[in-house]
Order: sequence, then structure tokens, then C-alpha cells
Amino acid sequence: MKNHTIWKWTAVAAGAMLFLGTQAWAAKQAPQLSEKDFKRGIQIYFDRCAGCHGTLRKGATGPKITQKKMLKKSLEELEEVIYHGTKAGMPGWGRTGEMNEKDTKLMAKFIQHKAPIPPEYGLRAMLKTHKVIVQPNDRPSAPQHSRDIDNMFGVILRDVGKGAVIDGDTHEVIEKVKTGFAVHIFRASASGRYFYTVGRDGKITMIDLFEKKPKVVAEVKVCADARSIDVSKYNGPKGNFTDKLAIVGCYWPPQLVVVDGMTLKPIKIISTRSHTYDTNEYHPEPRVAAIVASHADSEWVIAIKETGLIWLVDYADLKNLKITEIEAERFLHDGGWDASKRYFIVAANMRDTIVVVDTKLKKLAAKFETGVKPHPGRGANWIDPEYGKVSATTHLGEGKITVFGSDPEGRPDVAWKVVREGSTAGPGLFLKTHPNSENIWTDSTLAKEEGANKKICVYKKANFGKEPFKCWKATEHGKIVHFEYNKAGTQVWASVWDKQGELIIYDDKTLKVIKRIKGLHTPTGKWNVYNTVNDIF
Amino acid sequence: MKNHTIWKWTAVAAGAMLFLGTQAWAAKQAPQLSEKDFKRGIQIYFDRCAGCHGTLRKGATGPKITQKKMLKKSLEELEEVIYHGTKAGMPGWGRTGEMNEKDTKLMAKFIQHKAPIPPEYGLRAMLKTHKVIVQPNDRPSAPQHSRDIDNMFGVILRDVGKGAVIDGDTHEVIEKVKTGFAVHIFRASASGRYFYTVGRDGKITMIDLFEKKPKVVAEVKVCADARSIDVSKYNGPKGNFTDKLAIVGCYWPPQLVVVDGMTLKPIKIISTRSHTYDTNEYHPEPRVAAIVASHADSEWVIAIKETGLIWLVDYADLKNLKITEIEAERFLHDGGWDASKRYFIVAANMRDTIVVVDTKLKKLAAKFETGVKPHPGRGANWIDPEYGKVSATTHLGEGKITVFGSDPEGRPDVAWKVVREGSTAGPGLFLKTHPNSENIWTDSTLAKEEGANKKICVYKKANFGKEPFKCWKATEHGKIVHFEYNKAGTQVWASVWDKQGELIIYDDKTLKVIKRIKGLHTPTGKWNVYNTVNDIF
Repeated sequence: MKNHTIWKWTAVAAGAMLFLGTQAWAAKQAPQLSEKDFKRGIQIYFDRCAGCHGTLRKGATGPKITQKKMLKKSLEELEEVIYHGTKAGMPGWGRTGEMNEKDTKLMAKFIQHKAPIPPEYGLRAMLKTHKVIVQPNDRPSAPQHSRDIDNMFGVILRDVGKGAVIDGDTHEVIEKVKTGFAVHIFRASASGRYFYTVGRDGKITMIDLFEKKPKVVAEVKVCADARSIDVSKYNGPKGNFTDKLAIVGCYWPPQLVVVDGMTLKPIKIISTRSHTYDTNEYHPEPRVAAIVASHADSEWVIAIKETGLIWLVDYADLKNLKITEIEAERFLHDGGWDASKRYFIVAANMRDTIVVVDTKLKKLAAKFETGVKPHPGRGANWIDPEYGKVSATTHLGEGKITVFGSDPEGRPDVAWKVVREGSTAGPGLFLKTHPNSENIWTDSTLAKEEGANKKICVYKKANFGKEPFKCWKATEHGKIVHFEYNKAGTQVWASVWDKQGELIIYDDKTLKVIKRIKGLHTPTGKWNVYNTVNDIF
Repeated sequence: MKNHTIWKWTAVAAGAMLFLGTQAWAAKQAPQLSEKDFKRGIQIYFDRCAGCHGTLRKGATGPKITQKKMLKKSLEELEEVIYHGTKAGMPGWGRTGEMNEKDTKLMAKFIQHKAPIPPEYGLRAMLKTHKVIVQPNDRPSAPQHSRDIDNMFGVILRDVGKGAVIDGDTHEVIEKVKTGFAVHIFRASASGRYFYTVGRDGKITMIDLFEKKPKVVAEVKVCADARSIDVSKYNGPKGNFTDKLAIVGCYWPPQLVVVDGMTLKPIKIISTRSHTYDTNEYHPEPRVAAIVASHADSEWVIAIKETGLIWLVDYADLKNLKITEIEAERFLHDGGWDASKRYFIVAANMRDTIVVVDTKLKKLAAKFETGVKPHPGRGANWIDPEYGKVSATTHLGEGKITVFGSDPEGRPDVAWKVVREGSTAGPGLFLKTHPNSENIWTDSTLAKEEGANKKICVYKKANFGKEPFKCWKATEHGKIVHFEYNKAGTQVWASVWDKQGELIIYDDKTLKVIKRIKGLHTPTGKWNVYNTVNDIF
């Protein structure tokens, strides 16, 4: 974003500014801001606010904060909220030290101005940023080391624009590679050879794990703001798409970008601008929330936040592109597969709902409520002694795990019905398990009470009760976020998210610490190659 | 349009107005216009200019006329063009008397202003305009007359906002019904019982032909600007969709609207905003140029002008909507079926190209050049003694018919290749034939030479030469436009397009006039029920 041409942003959101008459009413009422302060407002808004409220401020995870609405509030009221946050979940940016007082005042004024519209970002602009650092033919034909690539981990070092690749056997940090700004996820290519990262600034980085040390072999910027990427995993009668393609989900512009899987060269852009599934009103900014790749068909499953649509995009023939647009729920968020990888399970967290899509029949399978703002991450699947195959979600809005049946063929009686609930140490972001494990791990990253966000709670699959099997404070600094298993499903990695950041590696059986990897700046999400390739969670 | 809330239009097109700084550079340079004159400019632009240049002035059939480009010209230059037209095909609005001198001066100034963005138009707004005048249950269960509905004609009376329904056997004008403004087409429902009309103002009218006199039984406005509509024609394993649905193609907002076939109640809106197929740049205004309904599948074939995409929209399950987006060519225009109704043949007239889509394989079949701005209308299919099944197009830019093979199964050697060319009396809009006829009829509506636009030229299928079999001046007033056969394929109806308008009905064998139906104000397109239901052309 920093190197983006902010001055090109235009000042008018859809349908608000009146042309006829000498001046816009809005411009009369918005407080004065210098050009410099307005630019700073754009940058801070992008870094801190756009994720929840939307670039055009139409709202999603956070409420709508359009100029019209903001002008009804006093600057003092707005400063108060920006500084201290809200009970509904807005962070107190001043309180936590992430904005100084001057900036909270600036942002109060800024949001009383009309949301500036960022420029479009098309193929021509993308191609200018595209670099192939090592051409496919110049890459090694076999690994240049003896490590087990399948058990490597990619770890986001969020605030330094880097990603660490760590050996899951030796726990050695093999390399820290430069990525985009505030990487959101890593994805492994279908062969497991490459990691792809997507930065919030829309920069994609492709890391070759065959090299002696993991190395960036290609990069490209395909969005101004992005969150998601996945690869082509299908290998079947329609063709072998292993490592052939990847797709990036942008927040701004609201679009999908298909890139070449070997070089990251952008191939095709698909706009997500469309209408809300229920009210059929045009939405100018439907953001791509989550993408997963089907193993059974040449399809990506794409959750589009604001319209509440789930798209199945068939990549077998990009020139005659098939999309199935499934009416789901608003606003869609994270999601992943059930154990059979037939059903895509995703949160519509503002409606407290889990949505299930049947990717075989290519239609909606179910919608049901679970709790306040469900957030399954990619999810967790296991076998419950009473209810058979189940899946689960944690919640952003309360300290609760909800378990539901996910086997419509074997257990239609409980399929897509809540069968169990359990408490955690507080509102959290992630839960995680592995087929070889007896445990379900949960964080409570969003908990407000002192110390609660430093806790980990573990449930037993065999004996899932209202209360966890065990909860403990895992760190003295930072907060605990996100888990990943090693390939064997015997160790669990948790992040301590702050500047002193570390990874804590637990023995999944004993729940004892095996290793602490220190000196990682703001580690957040992490992905094991094998588990990511095979969608094991 | 007249009853549209023009004052709501906003003043900013994508990416041009600079926010930062006190004033937009553009506003400084555009000539002064009073609010009243600006509103008048919006109305005139909509009526006369938007069709070719686009609402946002990005260009299509006419060139791009953005503010930036227009400010480089003097007002005198612009007035000259608006008054006298251009050789490239722009009408001389002053010369023909359709604008007075004051208005041509006003429009020169208006286009030096930024194109105002009209408001969105979503479901809520549509529902307010929806009227069911006769509920389906209250409609007669059998025709209340003894006329042959299959041989009725619907005729646009363009400038009076009406449509005439005429008995094809008796040539009697049964009724003139009120429609939207400047109706673009009539379509018969799959059963043939209903006519649907679409006005340029986006108003849809549903006419029941079972009533004693054809009667409007429902209406709704679903766009601010529209051109196309078609119905659901599929009846097969996926369901019987006869008279179940219709789909409207809007120019503004750029969207498709699916309505209930029995009541016109809007059901679903599908945005067409997306990226140009070739350059992958976002287009804010991809307009729906043509729609045809498949007989073999539950699909509408939709040509989207500015992006050059042809969409196959499967209406079998609107909640899990399947769309195939086929990369075709820019800018798409009119089109129709080949004789087998497997191939959709459409003009990309700015690239002098005909595009063919295989709706069975759901992919592009071919693209080939024919001449300056091909315009097949819905097309013309016949059997050529040498080349077998052929199809043809006339041209907006030259007086030429181009004939090409259209039988890839039977005659792959000439499929989608030009096999014959013939001249007409000048650039024209339509050509027409019928399986029972030996003739191909052509107009030359756009010809500039004195009298040439009053001519009809006819070719013989059996003996198609460089020159027509016969050309003649068919009228002393107005200009000749558009043909339609009666059900039997024995009579041809041609329109004389002016205020004294008439329909001339010819015997197809002898080319002699059978009847002149006078007193029709600006008759243009006309459709025979049977031929429209069965796509016979």
C-alpha cells in the first residue's frame, strides 16, 4: 500500500454526493483536513479500519461507518470510540498504543469525510509488478537438501513483512524470506514444493522449497488489498492441474485474479461486484473472504463476504469459465472442508451462522446458527463417540466451541445440527485438531480479561464436556493465536503474537512443551506443508 | 426516464476527479451550465447519445467521448459534429431536425462536463413499480376470440410509447397497448400466449393474447435504460419452464434481471460489471446487447457488449446459479441462432467480426471477419445449393450481405467461413428469410444517398449472386426498416419508419404489395408470434 498511488483515489462513493447545485452538502459539513492529513487518514484507514468496515465503509465484520452516519456523531464521540474501542469488539486503538492521540483525532475527522474510492487495478498494472526471479527451467529438478519438505512450516512474521520457513523435524528456522505487507496466509502448492504467500497489500510471493534454502522465485502484486490465495489441486479426467494455477482473492478492487502457478503471471481477472443475495441491491465492494481448492473437481470454492454468495469457479477452461453462484448468507468469513472434502463449511459471522455448501451437487446444503460470530478458521473435523463425524467452530464473540454433525450420508439425523457445546477461556480465533490426535486445541486471542488471551484450552475427542479437559496460561507476554500440527499429528505449534514473538511446540499427547522458538517478530498463522496440501484439519 | 429521479445522479465517473486539493481540475475547465440546462443535457444524452457512446461515455458503437477527450476540442467543433454528424455513422441531430440549434449548443457544453453517474436500481426500487393488472388466476383459461394467435404480430410504435398487435390473417390492428418509452423488442412467451415488450426506459409490459383484445396484464420497470428481454423456453428433464421466467438485459445499471414469467415480479438481479475479456481491465458499464433463449437447455445466451463476453445463464436453479462466461470479442451486438439452434451467432461489430458460440459444448466455436460493422439482427439461415446450411449478416457500415457456412457437422469444410457476398442498396440494419421462402430480404436503413434508405433488395437462395435479384424503392416517405414473415412464410412485412408510418405487406413469391397498413406512428420492429416462439429466421 505504501507504494500505491494514493493521490489517484477519487472522492465519491456511489450515490451520495449531489451534483446539481453548486456544492456537495457533504463537503460543507466535513471538518477541514489538510491534504497531508487526508493522505495519512487514507493510510491509517487501510491499515487499521478497512479490514472490518470495508474500503467504502459499507460495513461487514464492523458496522457501516459512512460519512452520513459519522456526521451525525460529534468528533468527541468518534475520538472516544477510536481511542477506547467498543464492547462489540472494536479494538481501542489509542488504548493499545497502536494509534497516538493525534491520530485518533485525525481519524475521527477523516471518517466524517466521504470515503475516497481507490483506483481500479487491472492487468496492465499487475504486469508491471510481475517478477520471475528464477525461471521454472532454471529451478532445481530435485531438492537441494535432505530435509523433509512435507514437514516444513511456513510462519507469518506479520509486522516485518516476512515469512519464516521452519524445519518441522529439527525445529530450525531455515530462512526468513521477504513477503508482502502483513501476510494473511501461506498456501502450499498441490505438489507441496512451493509456498505461496499473500500480503495485505496484494503482493504474492512464491517460495521454492527445493532450493538449498527456501527462496522467493516469483512475485507479483495483484490487488491493493488482499487476504486469500489457493492453488489448483485437481488431477483427474479433466487434466492434471498440480502446480498449474493459483487464485488470489482481493479486498480491493473487489476481484479474483488467476495467476500462473509456476511464474505468478496474472492470467485472468474476475470481478466480484454484484448484488446481495437476499435483498438484491448492488454492492460496490464484495470482498473475497476465503478460498479453498477442491480435490475432486477443477474448482475453487470462494466465499464472497458482502454479497453472501459462495462461488464455485471451475478453472479447467479459463476462456469458457464456469461459475456457480450459490446463495448463502451475509457476511461470509473463514471456512474449510469437512473430513470427506465434499462439504465446504464457512462462517457468516454477522448472522451467527454456519453455512454448508455441497460441492458435489454444487448447491447450498444447510445453514444453522451456532453462537456469536462463529469463526472456524479452516475448521476442525473428528469422530465423536456418540455422533460420528463432526466438525466444529470457535467464536469471535464468545468463548465457545460449537460441535455439529457433518456426515449427511452416515448420520443424517445429526447432520448440520449442533450436537455439543463447550466453553473456552474467551472469544477466540482458531481451533485445531488432526486425525491422529485425541485433542482439540483452542485459543482465546480476543478475550479482554487480563491474561485470558494468553491461555490455551484443550478438549478430548473421546470425552468432550462442557468444560475443557485442560486450560493453561501458555505465555507471560503477547497473546496466543493459531495452531498447526506437524505432519505426523504428534506435535502442536502455537504462536505467541507480539514483538518478542515465539512459537511454542507442544507434545500433543502429554501437552508438555517440547521447544520454544524465540526471536520471531509477531508470528501469527503457520502452515505445515503436508497438512496444507491435503487439507488436514 | 422522464419519471426517473435525475437529481440523484452523481457527478463522478471512475478514476478521473481528483479529490486532494480544493477543487477538481475538470470543474474549472468545463463551461458553465445552469442546473436546468444540465438536467436537460442528461435527458437528451439519454435519448440520443447513450445508446452508442455509453452512459459513462466510455464508447462502444460510437467512440469514447469522456470529458478529458471533449475538453481538447472547441465548443464550435463539437457543435458542428452534433449538428451535422460524421461520416463514421453519427447522425446529424441538427440536420435531421431531431435537435434544435440551441440543444446542439447545449450538448456541446454538456459533454465537456464529467459524465454524471446515474443511481443504482435495485430490487426495492423495482418492486415499487411492479403492477399485476390481471392476476394469473383471473386470466381466461382459453382464447376469448377466434383469431389465430400464432399468426399475430407485435409491432413497435416507437415514438409514442405503444405497441400494436395485428392479426396476421386479416391484417387488422386489433389493439394498440401502452408500453415503455421507445420499445426495443417484443418477445413471445414460450407458449405463445403472451407478448413481453421492453422499453428503453427499462419498463417491461406483458400482454395477454387470450383476452378478447390484447391486454396489458402486468408491468414493471427493472432498469433505467434497457434493450433486451427473452423468456424461458426449455421443457425437458430439468423441468418445464414454459412461461415460467423472463430475463431483461439492462444498459443501466449494467445488470440482468430475472422476472417471474406470469407476473413480471423481479426475482433476481445479476450484475454484468466485470473485466474486458482481452485486456482484463475493469469496465464500469458492460451493457447487455442481446439475449436468446436455448430450446435444448435451461439457458439464456447473453451477449455483453463492452466486455466482449457471452454468458450462458442456466435458470434451472436460480439460488445456485450457473453461469458460463465465454471470451468472445468486443463490442458485442445483435445475434441469434443457426438453423439447428445449437450455435449462437452474434456480431462484434466494432471489430468487423462475427462470433459463434457452441451452446452444446458451452464454448467459443469461431470468430471471423465479414465486413464493416456486421449486424445480423437475429440472423438469417437457409440452404445454399453449393454450400449447404448457411447463415448471413448485413452490415451497418457498408451495403453488403455476407453469407457463411453454419453446419460444422455436415459441411466442416465451409463452417464459419465466408462463402458468398452480395451488395445491397446501402448500409442496413436487417435481413430476413424463412424456411418456406426462396428469398432473402434486406433493408438499407442507414444509407445516406437520397432515396437509398427507402429501398428493399431481395436475393434468391437458389441463385445468390453479387447483385440482388431485385431492388426497388418501396415508399415515398420515411425509411424502410426490419422485416418479418407471417407464420406460413408466405408474406413479408416491412416497416416505413416515420410519423406517417405504415406497414407494407408483400407476397413473398411475387414481391407484390398485398396490403398497406397506415396510421401507425413510427413503426419499427415487429414479431410474428409463431416465428418468435420457434426462432424461425
